[in-house]
Amino acid sequence: MFDLVGFGEVMLRLAPPHYQRLEQTTSLDASIGGAELNVAVAASRLGLKTAYVTRLPRNALGWMTQNGARQQGVDTSHIVWSDEDRLGIYFVEFGALPRPSSVLYDRVNSAISKIQPGMVDWAGLFAQTKAFHVTGITPALSSSAAETTREALAQARKANLTVSFDLNYRARLWKPEQAMKTLTPLMEYIDILCTTEEDTATVFQIKGKDYKEVAQKLAERFNFKVVAITLRENITVWRNNWTAIAYHQGKFYQDRTYELEIVDRVGAGDSFVGGFMYSYLHDDKDIQRALQYGVAFSALKHTCPTDFNWSTLEEVEKLIAGSGSLRISR
Amino acid sequence: MFDLVGFGEVMLRLAPPHYQRLEQTTSLDASIGGAELNVAVAASRLGLKTAYVTRLPRNALGWMTQNGARQQGVDTSHIVWSDEDRLGIYFVEFGALPRPSSVLYDRVNSAISKIQPGMVDWAGLFAQTKAFHVTGITPALSSSAAETTREALAQARKANLTVSFDLNYRARLWKPEQAMKTLTPLMEYIDILCTTEEDTATVFQIKGKDYKEVAQKLAERFNFKVVAITLRENITVWRNNWTAIAYHQGKFYQDRTYELEIVDRVGAGDSFVGGFMYSYLHDDKDIQRALQYGVAFSALKHTCPTDFNWSTLEEVEKLIAGSGSLRISR
Amino acid sequence: MFDLVGFGEVMLRLAPPHYQRLEQTTSLDASIGGAELNVAVAASRLGLKTAYVTRLPRNALGWMTQNGARQQGVDTSHIVWSDEDRLGIYFVEFGALPRPSSVLYDRVNSAISKIQPGMVDWAGLFAQTKAFHVTGITPALSSSAAETTREALAQARKANLTVSFDLNYRARLWKPEQAMKTLTPLMEYIDILCTTEEDTATVFQIKGKDYKEVAQKLAERFNFKVVAITLRENITVWRNNWTAIAYHQGKFYQDRTYELEIVDRVGAGDSFVGGFMYSYLHDDKDIQRALQYGVAFSALKHTCPTDFNWSTLEEVEKLIAGSGSLRISR
Amino acid sequence: MFDLVGFGEVMLRLAPPHYQRLEQTTSLDASIGGAELNVAVAASRLGLKTAYVTRLPRNALGWMTQNGARQQGVDTSHIVWSDEDRLGIYFVEFGALPRPSSVLYDRVNSAISKIQPGMVDWAGLFAQTKAFHVTGITPALSSSAAETTREALAQARKANLTVSFDLNYRARLWKPEQAMKTLTPLMEYIDILCTTEEDTATVFQIKGKDYKEVAQKLAERFNFKVVAITLRENITVWRNNWTAIAYHQGKFYQDRTYELEIVDRVGAGDSFVGGFMYSYLHDDKDIQRALQYGVAFSALKHTCPTDFNWSTLEEVEKLIAGSGSLRISR
Amino acid sequence: MFDLVGFGEVMLRLAPPHYQRLEQTTSLDASIGGAELNVAVAASRLGLKTAYVTRLPRNALGWMTQNGARQQGVDTSHIVWSDEDRLGIYFVEFGALPRPSSVLYDRVNSAISKIQPGMVDWAGLFAQTKAFHVTGITPALSSSAAETTREALAQARKANLTVSFDLNYRARLWKPEQAMKTLTPLMEYIDILCTTEEDTATVFQIKGKDYKEVAQKLAERFNFKVVAITLRENITVWRNNWTAIAYHQGKFYQDRTYELEIVDRVGAGDSFVGGFMYSYLHDDKDIQRALQYGVAFSALKHTCPTDFNWSTLEEVEKLIAGSGSLRISR
Amino acid sequence: MFDLVGFGEVMLRLAPPHYQRLEQTTSLDASIGGAELNVAVAASRLGLKTAYVTRLPRNALGWMTQNGARQQGVDTSHIVWSDEDRLGIYFVEFGALPRPSSVLYDRVNSAISKIQPGMVDWAGLFAQTKAFHVTGITPALSSSAAETTREALAQARKANLTVSFDLNYRARLWKPEQAMKTLTPLMEYIDILCTTEEDTATVFQIKGKDYKEVAQKLAERFNFKVVAITLRENITVWRNNWTAIAYHQGKFYQDRTYELEIVDRVGAGDSFVGGFMYSYLHDDKDIQRALQYGVAFSALKHTCPTDFNWSTLEEVEKLIAGSGSLRISR
Repeated sequence: MFDLVGFGEVMLRLAPPHYQRLEQTTSLDASIGGAELNVAVAASRLGLKTAYVTRLPRNALGWMTQNGARQQGVDTSHIVWSDEDRLGIYFVEFGALPRPSSVLYDRVNSAISKIQPGMVDWAGLFAQTKAFHVTGITPALSSSAAETTREALAQARKANLTVSFDLNYRARLWKPEQAMKTLTPLMEYIDILCTTEEDTATVFQIKGKDYKEVAQKLAERFNFKVVAITLRENITVWRNNWTAIAYHQGKFYQDRTYELEIVDRVGAGDSFVGGFMYSYLHDDKDIQRALQYGVAFSALKHTCPTDFNWSTLEEVEKLIAGSGSLRISR
Repeated sequence: MFDLVGFGEVMLRLAPPHYQRLEQTTSLDASIGGAELNVAVAASRLGLKTAYVTRLPRNALGWMTQNGARQQGVDTSHIVWSDEDRLGIYFVEFGALPRPSSVLYDRVNSAISKIQPGMVDWAGLFAQTKAFHVTGITPALSSSAAETTREALAQARKANLTVSFDLNYRARLWKPEQAMKTLTPLMEYIDILCTTEEDTATVFQIKGKDYKEVAQKLAERFNFKVVAITLRENITVWRNNWTAIAYHQGKFYQDRTYELEIVDRVGAGDSFVGGFMYSYLHDDKDIQRALQYGVAFSALKHTCPTDFNWSTLEEVEKLIAGSGSLRISR
Repeated sequence: MFDLVGFGEVMLRLAPPHYQRLEQTTSLDASIGGAELNVAVAASRLGLKTAYVTRLPRNALGWMTQNGARQQGVDTSHIVWSDEDRLGIYFVEFGALPRPSSVLYDRVNSAISKIQPGMVDWAGLFAQTKAFHVTGITPALSSSAAETTREALAQARKANLTVSFDLNYRARLWKPEQAMKTLTPLMEYIDILCTTEEDTATVFQIKGKDYKEVAQKLAERFNFKVVAITLRENITVWRNNWTAIAYHQGKFYQDRTYELEIVDRVGAGDSFVGGFMYSYLHDDKDIQRALQYGVAFSALKHTCPTDFNWSTLEEVEKLIAGSGSLRISR
Repeated sequence: MFDLVGFGEVMLRLAPPHYQRLEQTTSLDASIGGAELNVAVAASRLGLKTAYVTRLPRNALGWMTQNGARQQGVDTSHIVWSDEDRLGIYFVEFGALPRPSSVLYDRVNSAISKIQPGMVDWAGLFAQTKAFHVTGITPALSSSAAETTREALAQARKANLTVSFDLNYRARLWKPEQAMKTLTPLMEYIDILCTTEEDTATVFQIKGKDYKEVAQKLAERFNFKVVAITLRENITVWRNNWTAIAYHQGKFYQDRTYELEIVDRVGAGDSFVGGFMYSYLHDDKDIQRALQYGVAFSALKHTCPTDFNWSTLEEVEKLIAGSGSLRISR
Repeated sequence: MFDLVGFGEVMLRLAPPHYQRLEQTTSLDASIGGAELNVAVAASRLGLKTAYVTRLPRNALGWMTQNGARQQGVDTSHIVWSDEDRLGIYFVEFGALPRPSSVLYDRVNSAISKIQPGMVDWAGLFAQTKAFHVTGITPALSSSAAETTREALAQARKANLTVSFDLNYRARLWKPEQAMKTLTPLMEYIDILCTTEEDTATVFQIKGKDYKEVAQKLAERFNFKVVAITLRENITVWRNNWTAIAYHQGKFYQDRTYELEIVDRVGAGDSFVGGFMYSYLHDDKDIQRALQYGVAFSALKHTCPTDFNWSTLEEVEKLIAGSGSLRISR
Repeated sequence: MFDLVGFGEVMLRLAPPHYQRLEQTTSLDASIGGAELNVAVAASRLGLKTAYVTRLPRNALGWMTQNGARQQGVDTSHIVWSDEDRLGIYFVEFGALPRPSSVLYDRVNSAISKIQPGMVDWAGLFAQTKAFHVTGITPALSSSAAETTREALAQARKANLTVSFDLNYRARLWKPEQAMKTLTPLMEYIDILCTTEEDTATVFQIKGKDYKEVAQKLAERFNFKVVAITLRENITVWRNNWTAIAYHQGKFYQDRTYELEIVDRVGAGDSFVGGFMYSYLHDDKDIQRALQYGVAFSALKHTCPTDFNWSTLEEVEKLIAGSGSLRISR
């Protein structure tokens, strides 16, 4: 019985230490990450029972990936194993004002990009699952991955799951027109959309005078139950402000804005989804509360190295309660 | 002949590098630290002749501790060695806004917690000592440690030493009521109290409309010669403002406020005491000057990794003189 | 449904890098380990479904421990959590001829040492379990841990599990007489004993003209189904020879001797048990084959850093088949 | 055929990691650096063909230096090799408010300090070179180095090269009077002076009501074609504002001010020269454009560890175009 | 004017530190390597003027590769740059008896695999080149890479270069039959073949009663001027014996056997070629001397981390002269 | 009151990690070392009260040196501080068969090389000292250092100290003839000579049919009370055999030979002296026993990183007693 199942790509993440440029480094910090796994891990840390579906090469890098998911309590028994393909890799360079952080992808021909409809027993898996999460990255990997995403979404609908989706437009993978064309027919399966104003504008050409209008337009065009938009203000590379809004049945929800000192912002949006879904599934769909959990948990993500959010439910609830001080906790 | 002797616990300090969470780390930076040793080291760096009394296990961790004190010129010949017990350990996690840094203690059953009256030759040691420093942590370790603290304080008084005390309330070790009950009778031996508004309120229930009133109330209730209160403003986790005030014979002393970029704030209060006592003993009890040395030296502590303050007297005096610029010094 | 369940202590393992002495290090490599968990991990890596039972503090170190087990596919849902106690720690120093490697334990008052009968639902867990593994370390931790071990063994017998036991005498925890007195009554529950000549002589005072006689005496005195003895020849600290023998129903089984270059020998005996049990449970109790898997898998353990054996079934079988060369495998 | 040739000292640069104080460190990050090499590297990265002249010991440290220059595409075929002398070393300590970063030099008796006129075939080298860069450091190393600098400058003039000069006053090497006396007669060979207000005031006693007046006075006194002055505002140690101005034929040029988060500011001024000269030589002496390239490129330098600027022409031009956002570039 | 030009693939090499398994690591040591570049670097270190031809992606990993070649004095001006493709990657795991070291390749779709005839101006390059080196890896990368290899070889023959070839059979890239079929027609362009008995047997099905017979058969079948065979005895993973033989015009040449303690054996065969070719080109084709340089230089390679041989000509000649002792050289 | 005082140079020791060549490294392990300090540290670890005399620059590197001595309990109150000079540096490269480890010195113009007679109050220091140790390195540093050595030796004789001397010939510092000429007149002050056959032959041209004859000739020519010769057999770089002999009043003493796996052999001879002197001074000049302590302690040194011997008296005595096994000590 799973509360939430994610589906998508996981990559080996390699990052030069100490703000070194990739070109100069002689050492790379290795971990794993991927938008949907990050969500599954995030939800798992807060207490949900989660599983992850992907396709991995049967080698040390594939095993490292499985280990990393299991370490966080994410079930990996539905992973599809390949004897031939590779694991995608991405390189992260941490920047500093005026240079933004950047990511170099080396993900072509990954095992997951060669996934095909029929490889995963969605019906069996979804028979005992409450929610399913996928992002706009997976359909961008290949046409067979797009077809498999559609297969999964159709099965999720059939099994009556709550389906969340993060737009996550990736310019290196496809053009906006392709994204719109591929993603639009998938939107009918989605209950909860999490995204940013930039991605919405790029993919769906939806813009508005403010984020509220954007959320409303999105909800109306695609008939989403919930639209959540994360809002980031880049003061500098190491200092950001962060919050999110949600729109549900004609009503807007807001939360406080967190000031952030950034250790690692990769995966922050995924943590928002994980926090939101945790609370949404756990607290009987209280949107305001879900928003608070999503924002607070993703605010904490920025202080954790790697894609994963190593924060705890206790830390989230203390932050929401506002009972935390900045004295050393001892 | 020692200018200042400290007494208390020293622990192995283990910290994950690079803002990693303890849960995720595969490597820990190892050093040693403890409130009173930090003071002895601080005073030694500025030029005082200091010694440290504690109880250590006779193993590699005990030797590491002794080495660390000796390295800084702190005499260790009065350390009591145990063949059975353990060295306490504490883990430091460095935070970032909105997550404060935190400390996880693993100090139960340390060798020092089993110290007993009679184990240390206080009379012999104090016969040639000018000042003695202890904190509110030592009496909290165990009842025998509390008794030994009282023994030491009584001997210090007898030998006519200047006695400094840092309240240092530790919520993981005892409750406020226990602290008040145990510490109150010790206050009669104290000449100089260094503390914070928070600790004063927690332990002695002394509050006031401002820190001045708090200092005055403290001095009056316990008849301290000097009360010094450090004042920290937590702008963010990495940026603080820092200063202190002193109260002496009805008069308040203030110093400039330093803006800080924080590398490691653990032990900052101890550096204040070390800087204050250095100047107090060295400059014939000039309170204003002692306050300046305490504040400047502890401001510099925030820029040094580990519990110790690796700054120099020259750096302190340059900072006080305001002659430093932020250009690279070369 | 579990093939094998382990029960015992897990500790934080801290090791100075690069042959540094503990006393001199400024960095410690952190991982987790414990005899029975090492067995569960070993068996899991080869393909068994395993679970681990222990008692952990509800803090970052406890979570790190749970993560480490889960990472290897070991189920942790039966772990007992404590809000008060600590995780045991051990420090490993790697030696070189003529200095042996050494371990410094700091395990007193660990959460597992305070486990009590009734805290674990053995009956429920064992209802769907094939084999149970425990060692002579757990009963040495405390009297309540000894009682809980007896409770577990009695339940395992009742549920008709195959029970394996590793003598693992730890001189820092108890005296030989205590060990004999405590362990002897537990032997009736044991099917498979894995041990060394040294431990057998120390605990049970059983010696013989050779290891065969020792194995036979052991089997006869305690009525074990299988006795396996690992045999190590310490050529130097970095070079060893390694094999094992087994005794079963009056018959001796031997395997080839492996020459080893040692990266990390901690946990080698545990890997032997894991490899033996994997094959024993998987290959219908073929003793010769189980011995081969145990010896080959534990030979490979010596080449893996940390307590765990990161080798794969494919590597084990290639080694047994003798098809491996020492050319770089590419 | 070289666009730009640099001449001066290169040192081994050793820096304690993670804001450690030099006194406490057990590890030093090793790289190479030197003002004029930094300029040659900077220009090379942007696309110029550059060479570097220095004198190095024929040992591993000398080879490391040569490798470091070659790695960046800087020609090293004119380096003079010594069988006897040493490579200079400098130690960098990274500070944090209120402690500035600092440099400890150990450069006495370096191979370059013993260079003598006649050791380098300037005429041959300059026959196919467009520009020559040297700084006020080289003449300060020794009298023979000062003579060799003069020799080089005279040859550069003869060969009709564009000559750039960075004042770079180093208080550890000489007194202001010596600097003025030695450098003044060299100024006649200089076309482009890059400097700071502080160095100008110290060495030439030229001050003004603002930097414009300073630039103008400099240009007029020494008849420079271009005077460029970098302007740094030290908000804190980790946050600076940065820009520069240029003066050319009676006209002032300004550029935008960059806010900086500082990773490593050593070599920023050299990057300014490298960026300025790249554009100046490449874009037909367009001062405004050269200023923009100098400022943007040196702004990016602050985000790169080591003395070198690992940024790319593409990054510079994106920054100048203002098309960059602070979102993660992916 | 180049003494030797190499052509082939360069990869990012990633290796877990300290004998960690790839699956467990959180850090990877990064460097670059590739059989033919290793030869060019080796020859360059001994004093030849070398260049390298490959195809690289225009990103940080491509630049890192170029830097690594230039650092060693290898000319990179003939590299072909791609805006689309990736750099191949390989992962090295260091083993210990009984586990051999191993390599995991992730090289599919690299930029070099997409090289095409016509992309490189071989005629221009070879007009001023003495020798050309390529291996059996390049033709295995893709059919266009095989065609480009043939193109290069034909041009080299036309320009009358000395051509060396290392068989380097890679089982992950192709089958023996494909290798034989592809490589056989290329052999007519080769003057000097460097290989091992294993590769010869696999690719050309040439076996003999000893390596002498193998060398002779090879020379006779393909009409090579020189055949050199490296001979490795794997005592253990960390201890090997190493030598080589050469066959030239009916005569056998042998050298002493070196006992080796192995730090990193990757690239040893390439160092043999580099050492052999250095001496062959430098010492007027004295086969005995070339063999000595090849064997001694490659023996030293085993003591150097990364693919490259960081030894010096002085070290090689001291080793050949037998004047070295094992005392610390100081 | 000191048991033993050492006098000489201390240097910053920088070593590339993991068998890297100095030329390739980006990180250096930093520690301190010097022959006579190593002896003082060795003796201190075993229980003697020791002090060290040297001359250091008043900067972070000088303080690091003082800290390192104090850390080991060595008194530093007689160190002479300089405001101008530098600390010598040496670089260690660890080799592997067939490449020996090597040291690159950068020690010219160190503060100690500029020491002058009259700078140290030898009479005051020696008034309460039992033994004095110096080596053949100090007189080689400069003529003023040689004079100061003579001054110290004359005062030691006057104060009736036991004087030990290690020949330690350093070919980079002087020629054999200079060494002989300078050292010969100093020999009259020496009681105990520790050396090797190689150094004796080089400096004093004393050779013999075996080490016994060498020892006897030395003792007779210079009238030493004790001559000790360490004997090393270099099996490989990582494996050595090690022992020593002593000659005293016509009698030879021998000890067992230790097989060694080498972690770091720098300072092994110094550890021999430290162990020998500890026992000699402690055990009433029992030569056989002193030899055993010297050999066992220095055997253990080979297993400790850095110049210092981090072993303990307990480890030495266990090794001498032969009660150690190579099992993990736990």
